[in-house]
Amino acid sequence: MDEVVVYRRSASRLTIGAHLFGVLAIVLMLIWLLHYRGGIEYDSDNPARVFNVHPFLMFCGFIFLVGQGITPPEYLKLNAMMAYKSVPAAKEAQKAVHMVLHLIGIALGIVGIAAVFRFHDMIGAEDMFSLHSWIGLTTFIILGLQWLLGFFTYMFPKPSLGTRSRMMPWHVSFGRALLYMAVAAALTGLMQRETLLNLRGHAESRLINFTGLCILLFGIFVDLSVALAHHA
Amino acid sequence: MDEVVVYRRSASRLTIGAHLFGVLAIVLMLIWLLHYRGGIEYDSDNPARVFNVHPFLMFCGFIFLVGQGITPPEYLKLNAMMAYKSVPAAKEAQKAVHMVLHLIGIALGIVGIAAVFRFHDMIGAEDMFSLHSWIGLTTFIILGLQWLLGFFTYMFPKPSLGTRSRMMPWHVSFGRALLYMAVAAALTGLMQRETLLNLRGHAESRLINFTGLCILLFGIFVDLSVALAHHA
Repeated sequence: MDEVVVYRRSASRLTIGAHLFGVLAIVLMLIWLLHYRGGIEYDSDNPARVFNVHPFLMFCGFIFLVGQGITPPEYLKLNAMMAYKSVPAAKEAQKAVHMVLHLIGIALGIVGIAAVFRFHDMIGAEDMFSLHSWIGLTTFIILGLQWLLGFFTYMFPKPSLGTRSRMMPWHVSFGRALLYMAVAAALTGLMQRETLLNLRGHAESRLINFTGLCILLFGIFVDLSVALAHHA
Repeated sequence: MDEVVVYRRSASRLTIGAHLFGVLAIVLMLIWLLHYRGGIEYDSDNPARVFNVHPFLMFCGFIFLVGQGITPPEYLKLNAMMAYKSVPAAKEAQKAVHMVLHLIGIALGIVGIAAVFRFHDMIGAEDMFSLHSWIGLTTFIILGLQWLLGFFTYMFPKPSLGTRSRMMPWHVSFGRALLYMAVAAALTGLMQRETLLNLRGHAESRLINFTGLCILLFGIFVDLSVALAHHA
């Protein structure tokens, strides 16, 4: 079989795998937050419910949408959005989807970060002391800068084609590093929560572990689908 | 300026950056384990000293050597080993270095994992309950399998050139995913330790955070140096 066909088919399967693990992580996280941790509510008087907005929006909003917005090349007729597969879009439409999904993800991420600061206020805890907070905020700020740089390079005012294509390896490589940074932030966050809750051996601990593994596999499958698509 | 020259120069600088952050992470971790945590000793009666073998060997042995062993293409005359830069080696020698560095890293990793199991025995704790342990052991096992597959594909018995080059995108992509998985394992491990030690606001907590950031930057710079080298 032609090896380009193999890579294309692999990229397509990896994209489906990314969706599966992403959705599975959302389901597991919702079970965790709703069944074990009392629900998700920003304006609650219960600090636990305010806190729960943070993991929910940071993964189900920010990381999931950003991952969805990473689009394999248009000619493959596959896209990080499943709907796209049936309706192959023009390159400019794909770029717009890529940009808008990241923007929505960033907006939800801002609310998610605000939630954890509000939680710290409510329980009188200090902000920004943990490794999780350092990695998380660093990632979020750099991703915001990457979005701005991407916008000015590829949407408006759009410099020459030469400049745009010279920037592309940097845009792609930094984007991938940021994806893995976001995954690392999520995993350190789950690890911190699991340790603070002292859940050794409980079913809830295993639920958190499976959620973490699904988040990690989501990141890896998004990365691999894009990487293999480059060979197709 | 010719853009290939730009990518080549960038890859070279990123490689130097990877070395700097890798060495900095080792130094910070040694300060942490020796100054704050009572030293590193496998055969000690003090469980804390036995535990310290684990982070030391998993990063300074396993992850650092594996990262060093990820070699940008030979024609760039730069290599993940600094020494290599002055003595550009033939492709076969580079492959051997790549393979042997990973093998030494894996061997040190086995001792590092044994240390934490010994520590759990000493304090009567259960093994494999945390998200860190799940991610860490999964990564280590898959990396071992990747090493075996790489050995049989590229060293011995070495199938046809066509098969070898068809496998290369998979070898490279999985290798990169494993690098980030190992970094995620290290960061969740530091996060777990920092939370258990309840270090909020202490100088030691900031030391652990800086160690974690250096490990993350080491992983990112290794990835980016290889990625940019592909465009050079």
